[in-house]
Amino acid sequence: MIAQHPAREQILLENVLTALGNPMRLKVVRALAADGERACGTLLDGISKSTLTHHWRVLRDSGVIWQRPSGRENLLSLRREDLDARFPGLLDALLNAMEEDAS
Amino acid sequence: MIAQHPAREQILLENVLTALGNPMRLKVVRALAADGERACGTLLDGISKSTLTHHWRVLRDSGVIWQRPSGRENLLSLRREDLDARFPGLLDALLNAMEEDAS
Repeated sequence: MIAQHPAREQILLENVLTALGNPMRLKVVRALAADGERACGTLLDGISKSTLTHHWRVLRDSGVIWQRPSGRENLLSLRREDLDARFPGLLDALLNAMEEDAS
Repeated sequence: MIAQHPAREQILLENVLTALGNPMRLKVVRALAADGERACGTLLDGISKSTLTHHWRVLRDSGVIWQRPSGRENLLSLRREDLDARFPGLLDALLNAMEEDAS
């Protein structure tokens, strides 16, 4: 695992909300919730590598995703168990809200 | 009403999450959820007027609160009906998460 992941008890609501307050990062969370682990290069099209790196860092440092190296790229997955344990019902409500917003 | 309130259908999830990704603003939302309408001067202690004005604007422009003038100050209230209509279950999950985080 890459070093900067917070432990479960270090995940803070305001950091999670800030991380998700961005349409690109919301889209990533929705994709990871639907598909499980994904290679980081498969998630957002037409975005520069530096911008992608920024988005992964915000999601990782806030505790929303796990990021682990695999060969020449990173695999991303949602920290669903940790988020559900810290904030019961929040992730499901957010995913439902994203569906509402997208429909 | 002050002019910059978005209509219900203009409230966007990413804006709401950005607005709430701040401990001061989370605290305000929690107080308004518990107490109903509050005068803006009664909500956060020890914060400069310009910072308060900034927080009220972020909450208002994102659609989280109503802000209306009353005499020499503004009254603030949570747009619970609009938020519940746009994103069912989200506000309650957030309020529960705030309780978890505060306990």
